[in-house]
Amino acid sequence: MSKKLNTETISGFPEWLPEEQIVFNEMLDTIRRVYELYGFEPLETPVIERANVLLAKTGGETEKEIFRFEKSGYDMATRFDLTVPLARYVSEHYDDLTFPFRRYQIGKVYRGEKPQRGRFREFYQCDIDIIDENGLAIENDAEIPCVIYDIFNQLDFGKFIIRISNRKLVSGLMSSVGDEQATTEAMRALDKIEKIGKDGVRERLEELDLSQGMVQKLLDFVSIDGKPQEVIAKLKELEVKDSEFQEGVSELGQIVKWLQVRDIPKEAYKIDLSIVRGLDYYTGTVYETNLVEYPDIGSICSGGRYDNLASQYIDRNLPGVGISIGLTRLFSLLKDEGIIEVGASTLTKALVLPVDPDNREVALKISDSIQDQGIPVEVYNKDEDLRSALEYGNKKGIPYVIFVGDDEIESGEFTVKDMKTGDQTSIPRDNLPTYIKEKVDE
Amino acid sequence: MSKKLNTETISGFPEWLPEEQIVFNEMLDTIRRVYELYGFEPLETPVIERANVLLAKTGGETEKEIFRFEKSGYDMATRFDLTVPLARYVSEHYDDLTFPFRRYQIGKVYRGEKPQRGRFREFYQCDIDIIDENGLAIENDAEIPCVIYDIFNQLDFGKFIIRISNRKLVSGLMSSVGDEQATTEAMRALDKIEKIGKDGVRERLEELDLSQGMVQKLLDFVSIDGKPQEVIAKLKELEVKDSEFQEGVSELGQIVKWLQVRDIPKEAYKIDLSIVRGLDYYTGTVYETNLVEYPDIGSICSGGRYDNLASQYIDRNLPGVGISIGLTRLFSLLKDEGIIEVGASTLTKALVLPVDPDNREVALKISDSIQDQGIPVEVYNKDEDLRSALEYGNKKGIPYVIFVGDDEIESGEFTVKDMKTGDQTSIPRDNLPTYIKEKVDE
Repeated sequence: MSKKLNTETISGFPEWLPEEQIVFNEMLDTIRRVYELYGFEPLETPVIERANVLLAKTGGETEKEIFRFEKSGYDMATRFDLTVPLARYVSEHYDDLTFPFRRYQIGKVYRGEKPQRGRFREFYQCDIDIIDENGLAIENDAEIPCVIYDIFNQLDFGKFIIRISNRKLVSGLMSSVGDEQATTEAMRALDKIEKIGKDGVRERLEELDLSQGMVQKLLDFVSIDGKPQEVIAKLKELEVKDSEFQEGVSELGQIVKWLQVRDIPKEAYKIDLSIVRGLDYYTGTVYETNLVEYPDIGSICSGGRYDNLASQYIDRNLPGVGISIGLTRLFSLLKDEGIIEVGASTLTKALVLPVDPDNREVALKISDSIQDQGIPVEVYNKDEDLRSALEYGNKKGIPYVIFVGDDEIESGEFTVKDMKTGDQTSIPRDNLPTYIKEKVDE
Repeated sequence: MSKKLNTETISGFPEWLPEEQIVFNEMLDTIRRVYELYGFEPLETPVIERANVLLAKTGGETEKEIFRFEKSGYDMATRFDLTVPLARYVSEHYDDLTFPFRRYQIGKVYRGEKPQRGRFREFYQCDIDIIDENGLAIENDAEIPCVIYDIFNQLDFGKFIIRISNRKLVSGLMSSVGDEQATTEAMRALDKIEKIGKDGVRERLEELDLSQGMVQKLLDFVSIDGKPQEVIAKLKELEVKDSEFQEGVSELGQIVKWLQVRDIPKEAYKIDLSIVRGLDYYTGTVYETNLVEYPDIGSICSGGRYDNLASQYIDRNLPGVGISIGLTRLFSLLKDEGIIEVGASTLTKALVLPVDPDNREVALKISDSIQDQGIPVEVYNKDEDLRSALEYGNKKGIPYVIFVGDDEIESGEFTVKDMKTGDQTSIPRDNLPTYIKEKVDE
């Protein structure tokens, strides 16, 4: 075979084979279904926006990472996340929206970065956010882990843990550290706890201009571990007077309470004070989610609370809380790890096979009656020998083949072949749709 | 309210309000479901591709209309349709695909044109294609109108008509016209039949260097009308000796036969010889679909048969047949015409309302039990008076509100308010999920 052009996609722009796409879509549909069950409304914004609007908040740093171009007099760029477009959308349609505004958006976003394992230039994000005006009840923050739980419980990729913390804890703790420089350095040190361990963090903290008591308090804080209620008790024992810190403890306590009320299994979540992420962006609750058996994959669903969604666009105070699932990254890593196994598979459940061109009329009627049951079905359209047709069904992974020959038409009993076991069963014409439906539902 | 930036999307890049997005998604889901029922597999290709690959076939003319830019050493462009990416995909993954390859793709495409009513710069196309190697049975062409019928029957926008023709008729007829120049001019004249009428076409044909008999034959051809079987009989009566013409008649005849076998209602399709579209691209069957009551909207689903999908990429003969629905255009025009009416609406079917913060625990339990029935539900998270909560539910269009107060909890009977009628019904706790489900299913 000779190719006339390089038909590979650009590096970092993934595409899948049909059998992979089916699994990808199942994951996407599960996420969408759960989002909808929790009362989130669908939303879509353009993939391409005015560059100055996309860059209004983040400015220069993001600029290098986006695809930006001029056309028809517009300075345009592809979106790099779904949060900035949400902020713009809420600002633009402020008068038409009902608050609290709960929306989900699932779509492609773009990064101009160098692609590597699990990092793409074009990839799907699946976001939910709840936005309210002026205040947003903590009960909203407590809903988010329930959504995460339902999604990963249904996706069924093994044990997972939702790690929850609150930025107010670190921030409140730090307010007693001293000058800004020391605060930033101390936060950087704490953020390294998973990489360099407690002793490493102590070393770094001791290099800073902090009292011995302060160093100890920070170390005590970041070492707190245990069941959610224990963590909260220990946080109280730290006796940090700062009111922001107290707020953080109270908010965490309320979230844990609501998760218990809703029977989210205890092993599915924990308070994890080592999350010091999202320094710039998040202002309260933060979430990360990990697959317990695949720690290398890192967080598969992250998010948190932010004080003001759209301050760059509109004079309104719009606090929100949300999460994002990087679906392309998740799918691709799970596939690499062999957690998602993709074999020959198709949505099509039955191949109706006219043994002879003259049998096609009956084959179409049978196909239509199966389709009426909501089952994807295909009539084999090629005039080839049976072996070729079965090879086609087999290669595609179609689970059932129905033979429509003169004998079958005369007797009114049709042979159904289970392509996995090779078993053949004779089924009366009128029972074919329900037979296939029962088999498929099994 | 003061805006700090222009937050409108770029002209031609539409976005919808949540209640509009819901209707849009319902249309998209219907199209997807029918595509899947006919055995088409899902596929997705990148929105952005190498510019030289996208432009390999169409070259210069398309170039002006695409969004093209350079980044990371790549000359990139946004795709302008889903057919060119399909051709590239089939070439790239040729060894991994099973032929006949049946795929659907639903995604955004881009045109750099000046936007106007029903014409966008970013819009959805919903495509199916069946590709085979070397030959593709006419039975595939006969499936396409069934797919179109099921989609627009389910979408329920009133009467529609699928117009079917075959390029081989015109092409075969023309082969006896004479020189190439005259052929092109004659085809242009025929293409104007709907605009300038039969007399107008006659005038134009008479200006060309054609025999009087040829002019009459072309006029007879384009004037043929009637039921499908009548049209086919009249085509045979024309006694055109050309073998390509004869092939076209035969193919149309077979398509009509299979549509009759599958009980596609006679009023839903016709053979319409005035379609002379797709001069460059299509080589056999062509389809257009119109809403009978809204002729101004033009064709809402078009497509046809092509000889060789991917000749610009690969040395393989890959004939195909397919259609495309321009969903954004369709949705937007139907909305403008008032055929789609969008009121306050939401996917969320029930708002569970804690009358007092203390009732929230029970409210969550009720919400979870309704959600378990697969019904989107929301617990009102704000600590506000009942009036504000009801206003929220009403503004969003949530159909049922469940009050959870001390009295309800004590008695075990909960008040469900039908927000449309204002009726209030008292329902025992355990019956709430099934009660709401029954109401929703009504």
